[in-house]
Amino acid sequence: MRMYDLIMKKRNGEELSTEEINFFVDGYTKGEIPDYQVSALMMAIYFQKMNKRETADLTKAMVNSGEVIDLSGIEGKKVDKHSTGGVGDTTTLIVGPIVAAAGVPVAKMSGRGLGHTGGTIDKLESFEGFSVNLPIEKFIQNVNERKIAIAGQTANLAPADKKLYALRDVTATVDNMSLIASSIMSKKIASGADAIVLDVKTGSGAFMKKEDDSFELAKEMVDIGTHVGRNTVAVITDMDQPLGFAVGNALEVKEAIETLKGKGPKDLTELCLTLGSYMLVLGDKAKDVKEARKILEDIIDSGKGLEKLKELVKAQGGDPKFVDDPSLMPAPSIVESVISNEEGYVKGIKADDIGRAALVLGAGRETKESEIDLSVGIVLHKKIGDFVKKGEAIATIYANDGEKQEIATKMIFDAYEIVKEEIKAKQLIKGIVTKDGINRF
Amino acid sequence: MRMYDLIMKKRNGEELSTEEINFFVDGYTKGEIPDYQVSALMMAIYFQKMNKRETADLTKAMVNSGEVIDLSGIEGKKVDKHSTGGVGDTTTLIVGPIVAAAGVPVAKMSGRGLGHTGGTIDKLESFEGFSVNLPIEKFIQNVNERKIAIAGQTANLAPADKKLYALRDVTATVDNMSLIASSIMSKKIASGADAIVLDVKTGSGAFMKKEDDSFELAKEMVDIGTHVGRNTVAVITDMDQPLGFAVGNALEVKEAIETLKGKGPKDLTELCLTLGSYMLVLGDKAKDVKEARKILEDIIDSGKGLEKLKELVKAQGGDPKFVDDPSLMPAPSIVESVISNEEGYVKGIKADDIGRAALVLGAGRETKESEIDLSVGIVLHKKIGDFVKKGEAIATIYANDGEKQEIATKMIFDAYEIVKEEIKAKQLIKGIVTKDGINRF
Repeated sequence: MRMYDLIMKKRNGEELSTEEINFFVDGYTKGEIPDYQVSALMMAIYFQKMNKRETADLTKAMVNSGEVIDLSGIEGKKVDKHSTGGVGDTTTLIVGPIVAAAGVPVAKMSGRGLGHTGGTIDKLESFEGFSVNLPIEKFIQNVNERKIAIAGQTANLAPADKKLYALRDVTATVDNMSLIASSIMSKKIASGADAIVLDVKTGSGAFMKKEDDSFELAKEMVDIGTHVGRNTVAVITDMDQPLGFAVGNALEVKEAIETLKGKGPKDLTELCLTLGSYMLVLGDKAKDVKEARKILEDIIDSGKGLEKLKELVKAQGGDPKFVDDPSLMPAPSIVESVISNEEGYVKGIKADDIGRAALVLGAGRETKESEIDLSVGIVLHKKIGDFVKKGEAIATIYANDGEKQEIATKMIFDAYEIVKEEIKAKQLIKGIVTKDGINRF
Repeated sequence: MRMYDLIMKKRNGEELSTEEINFFVDGYTKGEIPDYQVSALMMAIYFQKMNKRETADLTKAMVNSGEVIDLSGIEGKKVDKHSTGGVGDTTTLIVGPIVAAAGVPVAKMSGRGLGHTGGTIDKLESFEGFSVNLPIEKFIQNVNERKIAIAGQTANLAPADKKLYALRDVTATVDNMSLIASSIMSKKIASGADAIVLDVKTGSGAFMKKEDDSFELAKEMVDIGTHVGRNTVAVITDMDQPLGFAVGNALEVKEAIETLKGKGPKDLTELCLTLGSYMLVLGDKAKDVKEARKILEDIIDSGKGLEKLKELVKAQGGDPKFVDDPSLMPAPSIVESVISNEEGYVKGIKADDIGRAALVLGAGRETKESEIDLSVGIVLHKKIGDFVKKGEAIATIYANDGEKQEIATKMIFDAYEIVKEEIKAKQLIKGIVTKDGINRF
């Protein structure tokens, strides 16, 4: 078998066989096939696409390129959740505890990553003493004892994906549905989940700007899951404005705590109940989403969700008193309002710009070496459809640097679009994709 | 400027600017842009194509990546000839002398290359003592004194093309018209010619199998020539069977000598007169091809063409007696006929297979290190349309190894297709492409 022939085949619009896909993924991972042949193949795939079988084969080959985590020691059906990424997305800190409280084992491996704010494990470090360095045995034991554990990603998961993604990133071959879907799914499958709930974001703050593209990506991922025997459901959700109000690490943790108390932002609460409901159904803890939702609402109302978060924090070395009194968490030196100088309805909030403002303040990483400032960020006071009076605060900035605060203020002004005519609030959940088909709301 | 943006632009079907093309060719030649980005760009170009301006810019950038030979010391308009390559193609050894005899300066730089037989300079070495190692001053002096000189390609011509071609060759991105055309033309332009006559082969023994593709390639090359101010004419010629009868080095030289005596194969003679006529017109030595053809026919009839070959051989250290008595040239130990065991008309002769048979005998190079056997090869006795009797020789093999001779015999049998129904001879000249348009015959 020669890599040249594979490139030629795909270039000419032919299908690659399972053996051919295994050959190239294996050869590339081992360094036997050079970058320049793989980038040519990626560009050929960009133009000629891959069918369902090829996409599933690529995913499996990437899974098999590294470690596959064995979670068979955990009782029950492990349901993982994955978000394609947006701004102000704190769902794991809410969905994890409520789903665990309902009896579904949540065995979460999380990365730090680059982004506007830190990853889930950065946010958890707002609880002083919290550690994500759990050996796999301890991780499994924790999940069995209290249905939830969150560990840092230490395993060598899907190294082929890592190498391929890095190459695609510099050769303009990222945006192909099959390649994006297989990249995400390979890591989820290698992480050992039995079933997967995907939160596919759509809109200005999401990787997928167009709704149709988001549905297509969701469909690709659900197809892969189905193909490899992992029941997968995708929820397509709006990211035309940040989710919830808070963008930042400690700020988002506080918002998560509020939400677990039943006092969180409406959109964040709704999204968590929706994602959680599908997790309960896939985890065999509810017969349908209606029943699941009732269970989760009761868990929030009874305080069992918040209790579960405290359990999690304590079990991993953190101090649960921070949950009871979030004011103990890292706080910045500057807290300043952003005051509107116009009046009208919020028509749009460029989520990307809000994210970049948080990054400027120090909430996220620009490079792997960047240090995150857990205390800084933004809390929005107005969302799309809200009315704003002149002189009213549209947001509050939490900063440790006056200059950065000024830059962020300007960025927030630019992000908001305020108009005279009345604007309807955005629909949060755009649709659901399951193995049975696409359901647009 | 970032290479990433260039790939993205071309991928999305946009046009690359002159600056962008210069940036990538320059960066790639210097090793500042990695192979994997360039191969992705090549694949994007394969799918999205390049327009005339981009193709001309790429050609110019490749010309400027290395040395550009200064032939301004030569009086008159220097007209170069280039063939896209086929089997049994000895035209340079005929066209060169007749055109020079007509007063057009022939300043030819030739490579050795890989192929079924050697290149022009290998063939010339059939004349004992002949040397192609001419310093540039001597080369120019020779052309001024006797209108012809043939030197080995020693200069660093279009190194960007060399590097790009090697990359395209292993990434399935060779067959794009703009890339092929710019590759050929960059070397011709860097060689310093004022005008160029191209022999674009078409058919089973050519790089371009389909006639339409050959016309398209011809058009691309003529457009480039026009764009950079080098008057260019392309002749599209049949390569569905070998040209002339001889395939081999000394054998082709003997055939060239016969042709210069007016006793050569009809197709070879016709092609040389056609190519030569356009060279005379471009070189301002005839007002049209009709007049040019008359001049060249007179040169052959009067023996001035053969005389010019002798002059060339002598001027570069070869012994001209080999021209008078070609039997002195390298001869092989085995000369064996290939006898037909069927009767009928020759319908086809797979030129590629005949070429490979010559390669098996040792007439060409498989790798740069291969040594060429000048004496071996094949002489065909039957061409398409000819009638073959049972027991009649269709070809003669010249070999120095009995085993190789047997393999070649089998290959020649396989190459010939003999049928019962009468077959018309092939049309040699398929058409002409000039800056004024395409003329199909």
